[in-house]
This record gives sequence, structure tokens and C-alpha cells, in this order.
Amino acid sequence: MEQIDTLYNNNKIIQDPDSFMFGIDAVLLSHFACGGVRAGSNVFDLGTGNGIIPLLMEKACKAVSFTGLEIQKKSVDLARRSVTFNGLENKIQIVQGDIKNIATLFSKHTFNVVTSNPPYMPFDKKQAQNDSEEKAIARHEIMCTLDDVVKAAEFLLHSHGRFFMIHRPERLSEIFVALSKYKLEPKRMRLVQPFENEAPNLVLIEARKDARPGLKLEPALIVREKAGKNKGEYTQEVQRIYKDISGSISDTSR
Amino acid sequence: MEQIDTLYNNNKIIQDPDSFMFGIDAVLLSHFACGGVRAGSNVFDLGTGNGIIPLLMEKACKAVSFTGLEIQKKSVDLARRSVTFNGLENKIQIVQGDIKNIATLFSKHTFNVVTSNPPYMPFDKKQAQNDSEEKAIARHEIMCTLDDVVKAAEFLLHSHGRFFMIHRPERLSEIFVALSKYKLEPKRMRLVQPFENEAPNLVLIEARKDARPGLKLEPALIVREKAGKNKGEYTQEVQRIYKDISGSISDTSR
Repeated sequence: MEQIDTLYNNNKIIQDPDSFMFGIDAVLLSHFACGGVRAGSNVFDLGTGNGIIPLLMEKACKAVSFTGLEIQKKSVDLARRSVTFNGLENKIQIVQGDIKNIATLFSKHTFNVVTSNPPYMPFDKKQAQNDSEEKAIARHEIMCTLDDVVKAAEFLLHSHGRFFMIHRPERLSEIFVALSKYKLEPKRMRLVQPFENEAPNLVLIEARKDARPGLKLEPALIVREKAGKNKGEYTQEVQRIYKDISGSISDTSR
Repeated sequence: MEQIDTLYNNNKIIQDPDSFMFGIDAVLLSHFACGGVRAGSNVFDLGTGNGIIPLLMEKACKAVSFTGLEIQKKSVDLARRSVTFNGLENKIQIVQGDIKNIATLFSKHTFNVVTSNPPYMPFDKKQAQNDSEEKAIARHEIMCTLDDVVKAAEFLLHSHGRFFMIHRPERLSEIFVALSKYKLEPKRMRLVQPFENEAPNLVLIEARKDARPGLKLEPALIVREKAGKNKGEYTQEVQRIYKDISGSISDTSR
């Protein structure tokens, strides 16, 4: 059953709880990426699902255009209807296609920024069959692997273009190895902890193509308060992130 | 001018402030590594300096022997005199030699555990000349690179042997790429923040040779209190680490 939700920036998004609903990872990635998008950029979202990343980012940064690539017909349809609903047809384009065929779909080295919130889990038939087909494809590496995503990002980006990804820290080693393989140099990283003094469960990474080595780590982002009167609620920083993504985030890049 | 200091475990260490004094990184690495040393293990410390890592670890874990390799004659001399001073000649052996010649000095695949607190900084002639020769070699990659250290660890370790290293998080990407190159699979990682909500400045890593992928991240370790009546002092956890390293840490490995 479809529903129409209003985002923090007042864009509307059509979602279907049976397929996939966006979560905090889409918000954190959009916010993390916006800080590195220069005015006039073109942005590409790999595996865009229902288009949540472009729909969140479009008001918060000064990019001129967004392209979202998605393999699942049902998600493409939802994303396109959301774009139309918001009157953003001139700014956001949703393309149906396979990340692995990127070279046949787009010209190489033509984007300033690539974002991706890819499937976090390696393909495991047993685990995947607990989900609907749409959820399984969004969560598990059924249609594309981490290597496919990073390879596609390299293909799309200009030299010195930026790649922003959110993933699971358990896969940090594979992430760095894949980025290195495709000459995407990690420049900024932030771990996300559900609570203070708990192990991180998400990682935000910014890599720049053909850049010099040198990774800047940011303090861990704590999602919720562990104690006190606001126990279980979002921390002030996460509240600020949700608020910022509804407005305009200034370009903090050098 | 040399001085004799007493460690938390009552071992004595001979240090020379003009060459190199051990810091919190040696304590954190020793503590981090001890949790993964099984009874009866032989432990190898790459670039042992004045022998601080074996001298800290020997009472806190049930290893039967430690070998420290060091290239600088002056540090080797300090380390050997500390070993003799503590009557540990049968347990700790200090070898003078070059990490890059590891294959001519030792038999391959014969150690259970390798530790290393290597030089953190890539060689930079300008920066390095601010230090004494001994300090420069300990801090900068003058005599060996990260790749040399990881390669030597692989040479020394049994299959499924463990490698423990402390380094700077700015070099995390290079670290993961080097570990992957030498089949040392990262299994455990902990970032160290000087204060709460500040960027990490150290990273502890455990890798296991020929192991399956899967990295476990631990919560960030906060070194000092940011506020309150104990502002600037070690946090309770760091105090516990200093205390633990003076006693016996139980084997937490599976």
C-alpha cells in the first residue's frame, strides 16, 4: 500500500512499506554529501531506490541536476512519480538500468559528485529470503556488489570528483581496498554510533578521485541519548542534521 | 641522560629522553594485544625501540617468549640492559636488525603473535630534521615503511596468527590496503579520541592471517575527561587499562 510522506524540506515522497522505506542512513548520507557539493555541480545517485537521496539533497545544496539510477522497475516508478509530484522533472532524472552496465548508459568522467547508499550485506540466500524481493535487492548484494558500485562511481566521476557513501563498518576493509583499486582516495570518514560508548553501526565516507592520500576522521556521530531526561531521543547533533537537510547547507569544501 | 623508570607492572625500563620515551600508545597497544594472546604463545615485536612493548606485555599475558627486533644500536643497547636488569633474559630476546631483512634473520611462519608501534609519519626530510636521529627514525618512515612492517608481520606469522598494530587514523586506507595485500584480515578495530566529541588521533587494529572477512568495531576509546571535576585527567577506562597492564589480562579470544 503506497503512502505519500512529507520530507523535512517539504518535498513529498511516495513510499511503499512493502518494498522499502527510507531510514536515517539516507538522511545522514544526504547531509554528509551536501557539505561537499559545489554550486553548479551535477550529482549522480547509484541505486537511488525511490529517489530519496536526490529528493533530500536538492534543496540543501546548490547542485543544478541530479541523476538517479535504479534497477528495480517498481522503485523507478515510485521515484519518477515523486519527482513529478514535486515538479522537479527539470532537476531530477530517474534512469532505469543496471549499475554493471553503467558504461553503456552514460558518458564516462562527466559527473562532479556521486552518492550511494548501497546494499550493506553480502548475498546470503537464507537471510535474503526473509525479505520481499524489493527489500532483499535493496539490502543484499544480489544485483550489485560493493566493487560494482565503486567501479561505477569511478566511471562516472571527473578527476577530483567526489564520491559519498554510507555503509556498515564491518566492511571497512573491503571499502578501502575497493576505493584504492579504483583510484578513489578516501579523504573524510565519520563513524556513526547508535549510542555513546556503543560500537558504531554505520560509516560515512568521502573519497576524491585521483587525490593525494590523507584521511580526515571526524568524531563519532552519536544518534540517540543514552541517559537523562531525553533518553532514547535523537541527540542535538542529529536533530540539527534533520533540520539542516530541510534548509541550505553551505559549501564547506576547500 | 639515561633514566630508570618503573612500569605499572614493576618492571624497570631504561630510557633516554634525548632518544625516545614511551607514551600512551605503547600502553594502549600492549593492552589491546594482550586480550588476544593465548597461553604458550611466542610474540614478536617489530621495531621494539627500548623494548617497552615486551616489558609491558610480559606480565599481563601468558606468552612464553618475546622477540623484539630493532635497527638502532642505541635502542637495542637500552632494551637489552632493561631485560637484564629485570632478569628476563630467558623470556625476552632483543635482536638488532632491519625489518626489511626479516627473511634472512628468522624462519618464516613461526610466531603466534606480532605487535608493532611503527613510525607514524611518511618520510619528510624537513619535518624529520627537527628531531634527533633516534627520534626521527622512530617517528618517520626513514628505515621502514608501513608496507615493510605489514610484509614482515605476514612473514613471521603462522596461519591464523594475530597482528596487533597502533597507528594514525589518517593512514587507515593505506593500512587496510597493505593488510589485504599480505592476507592479514582485519578483525577488530578501535579508534582512540583524545577527548569526547573530538576527532580520533590513534587507531588500534587486530588482523588475523588467512582469516575470513568481518571487522568488529569497538566503541571509540576516550583518553581524557573533557569537563567536570576531573577535567583533563584520564577517563576511568584509561585508568583501568593502565591498571590492567600491571596485572594479568585474561585471554578473551575465541
